[in-house]
Amino acid sequence: MKPHRTHNQDLSDVLTADRTHHLHPWHDLSAWREADPHCFTSGEGIYVYDQDGQKLIDGPAGMWAVQIGYGRREMADAIASQVMELPYASPWTSTTAPAAQLSERIAELAPGDLNTVMFTTGGSTAVDTALRTMQFLNNRLGRPGKKIIIAREKGYHGSTYLAASVTGKERDKSCFDFEDRLVRFLPDINPYIRPDVMTEAEWCDAKVADLENMIAEIGPDRIGAFIAEPILCSGGVIIPPKGYHQRTLEVCRAHDILYISDEVVTGFGRLGHWFASQEVFGIEPDIITCAKGITSGYLPLGACIISDRVMDRMTGADHDVLFPNGYTYSAHPVCCAAALKNIEIIEREGLLGHVQTVAPHFQARLKALEASPVIGDARGMGLLGCLEGLLDAGRDTPLEVQRTLGARLDAACEARGLIVRPLINMCVFSPPLTISPDEIDAMFDIIEDALTEVEPDFA
Amino acid sequence: MKPHRTHNQDLSDVLTADRTHHLHPWHDLSAWREADPHCFTSGEGIYVYDQDGQKLIDGPAGMWAVQIGYGRREMADAIASQVMELPYASPWTSTTAPAAQLSERIAELAPGDLNTVMFTTGGSTAVDTALRTMQFLNNRLGRPGKKIIIAREKGYHGSTYLAASVTGKERDKSCFDFEDRLVRFLPDINPYIRPDVMTEAEWCDAKVADLENMIAEIGPDRIGAFIAEPILCSGGVIIPPKGYHQRTLEVCRAHDILYISDEVVTGFGRLGHWFASQEVFGIEPDIITCAKGITSGYLPLGACIISDRVMDRMTGADHDVLFPNGYTYSAHPVCCAAALKNIEIIEREGLLGHVQTVAPHFQARLKALEASPVIGDARGMGLLGCLEGLLDAGRDTPLEVQRTLGARLDAACEARGLIVRPLINMCVFSPPLTISPDEIDAMFDIIEDALTEVEPDFA
Repeated sequence: MKPHRTHNQDLSDVLTADRTHHLHPWHDLSAWREADPHCFTSGEGIYVYDQDGQKLIDGPAGMWAVQIGYGRREMADAIASQVMELPYASPWTSTTAPAAQLSERIAELAPGDLNTVMFTTGGSTAVDTALRTMQFLNNRLGRPGKKIIIAREKGYHGSTYLAASVTGKERDKSCFDFEDRLVRFLPDINPYIRPDVMTEAEWCDAKVADLENMIAEIGPDRIGAFIAEPILCSGGVIIPPKGYHQRTLEVCRAHDILYISDEVVTGFGRLGHWFASQEVFGIEPDIITCAKGITSGYLPLGACIISDRVMDRMTGADHDVLFPNGYTYSAHPVCCAAALKNIEIIEREGLLGHVQTVAPHFQARLKALEASPVIGDARGMGLLGCLEGLLDAGRDTPLEVQRTLGARLDAACEARGLIVRPLINMCVFSPPLTISPDEIDAMFDIIEDALTEVEPDFA
Repeated sequence: MKPHRTHNQDLSDVLTADRTHHLHPWHDLSAWREADPHCFTSGEGIYVYDQDGQKLIDGPAGMWAVQIGYGRREMADAIASQVMELPYASPWTSTTAPAAQLSERIAELAPGDLNTVMFTTGGSTAVDTALRTMQFLNNRLGRPGKKIIIAREKGYHGSTYLAASVTGKERDKSCFDFEDRLVRFLPDINPYIRPDVMTEAEWCDAKVADLENMIAEIGPDRIGAFIAEPILCSGGVIIPPKGYHQRTLEVCRAHDILYISDEVVTGFGRLGHWFASQEVFGIEPDIITCAKGITSGYLPLGACIISDRVMDRMTGADHDVLFPNGYTYSAHPVCCAAALKNIEIIEREGLLGHVQTVAPHFQARLKALEASPVIGDARGMGLLGCLEGLLDAGRDTPLEVQRTLGARLDAACEARGLIVRPLINMCVFSPPLTISPDEIDAMFDIIEDALTEVEPDFA
C-alpha cells in the first residue's frame, strides 16, 4: 500500500486557496468561504487518502466513475505517451488514431446498430448533444413541431442549460432557469413508493400508462424524445419495475419518439456489462449517452452514440447538410488514449465478470441492512447501492431530522474509514469495480457499525 | 526533430474506423462516410506530422489552443505524476491541491476583483455556466425578468444549446433550434465593412449606438448580460474599433447589465497578456470565460471567472442558497495539474514578452499580403491573423467562386507545409506562441507563394 504523503504547511495554503477562490458544483452559497473543503491527496486501489492522512474506502468511486481503481501505472504511461506523441488535434478538420480506434471500439461494445460516435467533454455535453441531435433530425425530416422531451422526476442528466432542463430533481432547480417549453416530467417510478396494495406488476402498468397518457395528451407529433437512465442513479438508485424498460421502448417506437438511454453511470461495467440497456434490460435505444466509466474518470470524456436508424435519416445528398455541434475537446487524443487503455484493463482483468461474480454478495450485504429500524429500503443492482432512511411523519423524530440521515450516516462512515454519498435521507454507493469480497465485507461492516451509532437519534 | 513514425497498415485501419464510426464537429452529412479525414500522427514544436509523413507548420495551433507547442516532456511528466497521485476526486464534496492552487493562480492572473473560479470542461460549458450565473443572480435579486442576453453577429461562443444560442454565425445555425426567447444580436462590428465615407471613430460611435438603441428598445430591466469576445475570432478575427470595449462596458454598467468577456481564444497569451480584457482593451468585465490556452489544449479544461461584485450579490446568509451548476469533470485534478504546468512554462520561458516582441513582425508580414489583388483585408493582433478575400459581385469571377478562396488557399498552403484554417472567403491563423521570427517568415513565405498559385483563378 502506498504511504500517505502529508505536507501540512502546503495543505493549509491549499485549503485557504480553495475556500477563497474555488466555486464548487452545488456549493452552498449561504456558507460561502466559511468551511474548509475535504481535500484528497492520493489514491491506491479502492482507497483514497485525505488531508489528515486518513485512509478511506472510496464508496462512490469518485463520482460513479473510477471503475478500475486508483494508482494505475499503465494509465499514466498511456496518457503520458499520447501527450508526447500528439496532445491535441482539431476534431473539426482532422482525426487521430486514438479517436478513430475508440469510436470503433465503442461501436463494437454498444448494442445493435448504435455505430456512430460523437465525442463530448462529459455526460452533460453528451446529453446536450443527444437532445440537439433529436432537434436536428426532426428539422431535417420537416417536422419542426416534434420537439418536446419527456423526462422523469428524480432523473439526473447534467448541468448545461439543456441537460439541466431535463433533470427532474427539485433540489437542483433552485434559482436557475430552464427550457420549460420543451420538457415534460413523468412522476416518480420508484417501486418503493407504490401503495401497499399494489403489486410491482401493477406499478409497472401504472408507470407505462403515465407515459402513454402523457403522449396522448400532448400528441405524439409534438414529442421528439424520451430520455431515461436505465437506473435513476443520482435520484437514489431507483430501479424501474420489471418490464418497464421494454414496454416504454415499445411505446416510443410506436410513436416515432427517440429513446435516449442515459448510461453515464450504468455504462462501462457498473452492472457487469459494457452497457446496461440491452444486456441487462433488453432494450436497444436510439441513442446512448455515456461518460465517467469510459475513462474510469482518469480524464474528461463523454460520448453520444447514435444508431444507424437515426444517422440514416439525418444524412443525405442534399446541399450542405452541416451538423454544427461539437467541442474543441471532442475526440481529444489524450482522453481517447486513456479510454482505450481503460477498456483494455477492464477486458484483460475480466472486471465485467468480476462484477457479475461479486454483485450477489454485495447486494445480499446491502439488503441485510433493512433490518435496521431506521432504514426503509436498501436497494441496488450490480455494484450500485442505496440506503433510504425511513421518512414518516408519524414518528417521534421530526421529519427535518429524518431528512438528515444521509449526512449523519456519511459522517459516521467517514469516521470509520468509508466515504458514502449522502442524498437527503439516503446514502448511495458505487465502489470501484475491482473491489474484492473481503473489501465488500469491510465496507458493509463499517456501514452496519455506523448505523448502530446513528440509530438512537432516528429510531 | 522527432522522426515521423508511419504505420501504413495501421493507418489504413484508422482511416476506415474514423470514416465508419466517428461523427466530427461540423461534419458535412451530405458527404457522410465518403472522404478520408486528415489524420495527424505526431507533433514537435510548432510542427505536426500527418498520415503521409508530411511535416506542417500548425498555423491554427490545433484550434487557437496549443500555446506552448507540441512535444513538451514536462507536461507529460506533470500529467503522469498527477494520474499516479490522484486521477480523480469529486468536486461536489472535495478539493485537491491542483484545483485549489489553480483557482488561486487564475484569480491572480485575472483582472481586478475577478477572484472566484468555477471550473468547467471547456469553452462551451464555461459560457453556459456564465450565462446561467446571470440567471441565478437575477433570480436571487428578485428581478426574474432581467434575463435577455445581447450578443453579436459573427460572435462564436460554443456548442451547448445555450452557448450556441448566443453564437451569431449563420452557418452554425443550420437545422438546430435555439433559446431565441433569450437572445438578441447586434449587427456586425467589423470596421472593414464600414462605408468608405465613415472614419473608424464614426464607426465606433455607430456600433456603440447600436447597443444603446437595443437596450432602449428592449428596456434595460429586461436585459441580463452582454457577451462579447474581445476579438471575434472564429467570425474572422474581427477587431472592434478603438474605444469600443470601454464604451460598451460603460453602457452595460449604467444599466446593471453583466459584461461577460469570452476570452476562450484571447486568454493565456494570444495577445501577449494573460487576459486581453484589461491589459489590451482597458476593461474589467464582470465575468471572464476561458479554456483552450489554459492547458495549451493538452487536456480539456475551461473556467468561468466571476467578480466579487457578482459573487457578493449571489451569496448571503439566507436558507439553502445552493448553486446547482457544475460537472463531474469540473476541477479535474489531472487537467488542473496540466494547467499549472502550462502557466509555469509560459512564465518561465517569457512567452508573453515573446509574443509582444514578435507580434509586430508577424503583423507586418500579414499586412503586406494586402498587396495581393485577391485579398481585401489582412488584419490581426498579437499572434492572431486573418486574410479576407475580396467578395465583389462586380468582378468577373462569380461570387460562389470568390467564396472558395479560403479552401483553395488552405489547400495550396498545405501542399507547401502550412496548415491554415479556411472560413469561406477567409483564412485564419494563430500559431503556437513559441514561434520564432524565422518560423514566422517561413509561414508567410508559404502564404505568399500559395497566393501566387490561386490568384489567377480569383483575380
